[in-house]
Amino acid sequence: VGSEFSLIEKYFRTAPRKAALGVGDDCALLYAKPGVQLAVSTDVLNEGTHFTAGADPRKLGHKALAVNLSDLAAMGADPAYALLALSLPLADEAWVAAFADGFFGLARQYGVDLVGGDTTRGPLSICVTVLGEVPSGLALRRDGAQPGDDLWVSGATGEAALGLEIVQGRLRLPDAAAQTCIARLDTPAPRVELGGRLRGVAHSAIDISDGLLADVGHVARASGVAIRVEANALPVTGALAACEDPQLRLACMVGGGDDYELAFTAPADRRDEVLLIAAELSLPVHRIGAVMRGEAEAVLVDRHGGRVSVPRRGYDHFAATP
Amino acid sequence: VGSEFSLIEKYFRTAPRKAALGVGDDCALLYAKPGVQLAVSTDVLNEGTHFTAGADPRKLGHKALAVNLSDLAAMGADPAYALLALSLPLADEAWVAAFADGFFGLARQYGVDLVGGDTTRGPLSICVTVLGEVPSGLALRRDGAQPGDDLWVSGATGEAALGLEIVQGRLRLPDAAAQTCIARLDTPAPRVELGGRLRGVAHSAIDISDGLLADVGHVARASGVAIRVEANALPVTGALAACEDPQLRLACMVGGGDDYELAFTAPADRRDEVLLIAAELSLPVHRIGAVMRGEAEAVLVDRHGGRVSVPRRGYDHFAATP
Repeated sequence: VGSEFSLIEKYFRTAPRKAALGVGDDCALLYAKPGVQLAVSTDVLNEGTHFTAGADPRKLGHKALAVNLSDLAAMGADPAYALLALSLPLADEAWVAAFADGFFGLARQYGVDLVGGDTTRGPLSICVTVLGEVPSGLALRRDGAQPGDDLWVSGATGEAALGLEIVQGRLRLPDAAAQTCIARLDTPAPRVELGGRLRGVAHSAIDISDGLLADVGHVARASGVAIRVEANALPVTGALAACEDPQLRLACMVGGGDDYELAFTAPADRRDEVLLIAAELSLPVHRIGAVMRGEAEAVLVDRHGGRVSVPRRGYDHFAATP
Repeated sequence: VGSEFSLIEKYFRTAPRKAALGVGDDCALLYAKPGVQLAVSTDVLNEGTHFTAGADPRKLGHKALAVNLSDLAAMGADPAYALLALSLPLADEAWVAAFADGFFGLARQYGVDLVGGDTTRGPLSICVTVLGEVPSGLALRRDGAQPGDDLWVSGATGEAALGLEIVQGRLRLPDAAAQTCIARLDTPAPRVELGGRLRGVAHSAIDISDGLLADVGHVARASGVAIRVEANALPVTGALAACEDPQLRLACMVGGGDDYELAFTAPADRRDEVLLIAAELSLPVHRIGAVMRGEAEAVLVDRHGGRVSVPRRGYDHFAATP
């Protein structure tokens, strides 16, 4: 058990590789490169809302950074800096050490400098702010989707939501499938490389944190276009197939958040390029729909174009419980 | 009562004046100006640690931004952008409206764009990240103090700590003095203009959030210099003078945080310039000590140079209660 200052010194004060000045002053100092815009985002994970009491601190450290890197990936920005504000009920050194291990494991993977933070007493809460770099004008925005674009999704959606069903005791799956789903929930992999490679290729992108249909709906409204999501085109992994309830599976695939895949739109004449990028990254992508003129919303359809009712919707912290 | 998205839309989605892209996408996009560094800092205020349940949301909105702007001021950076992560137990629209009013009142004063955020359910916690601009190489760092520098402080320290004594029922002061002290605690004024004007004049600066002696000690250690703080040179306002317990008064002046004044060091040949800046800003500054060679620490001394014992130390969230 140490004090605020000694815990920060011991676990979070690392020499910056990119920043002009890292942790330890009133502010960090970042270089501004010519021709580059900074993408910035902040996200909070709270005990009781985003994770349960007693959650593995190493996994929390990973996830707290991963969900923020996913926001950078969705803008096509290269991760550069992070700030960490950590509220802890107790100065539990073992907890902090494990958390830092998970956090820095992912930070090192993407060359992210931890440049600032705050450690205070309070109910367990983790607030991470990230900054990334993107060549000016090339960011992948939500409002860039155009009629004629294909809708794509990376990897597959739904495993994290199935993982939540499992850990909350509402679902059983065979061991291997269950482990895949729970790992997705606990330690999501942000699609950083894909986001960067889609600059200049995709017209729009978003990361799937609220649920595929809800997030694609954000793109549709921001872009003023209709987006059809074809239920039958959604990728079904082995773990998803292990769920024998087709309604629950579809609900998780279109409504479950926490997978942190990217949904993006790109012109039809870039299909080969998208598939080549995916092959080079060994990350499957699937064409799951189309952008068209029409009411600015995302609609789930069957193979005949008929509307499919959605078993469950995206997550809204303050909406009434469904 | 609304959902997360509607609360964000209604109260926090403002058109950016500086940012290339504001609230509403996965990230905001900021321009990087040539010759400018970005200063970035994050701070958290938690209910139960930094403020009590039932605290006025308008004042909280002000203070949450003010403490962060104070970090920018201490670097000599001009405020530009803020991100707000707000955890709320309930979606209480009246609370959010008042909070936003306090937050944006101060944001407008300094031309700060709110460019991102997160609103989630959880125990009341406010995490603000700010970014400011400072010409490359001119930031006021903690490690720049040099032997021969004067030590200065803006305004006066101790009123906020007396305010805390009052609201916690341990002290009574006459009404006017009490109101002054409580206002300092609730709605501190970050010394943004002073920080900017000290670029190229001061050698080092820090904002006083932990307590004058603790914060000057940070400067001493970072700079590898000894700093004497002269107890008799510390400014005593009318409100401080109203406290008839000289030990408590001194304890608050040297050990109380939350005033958000600036302590800074500057060469002796810049004294007139410092005083001119202060006069132009109508913000008093006082020369309260000196930087010298010696053990890297801050020491409180009397008029004869003898060491004065300190009644209370700076605040450390995880240290044992004194």
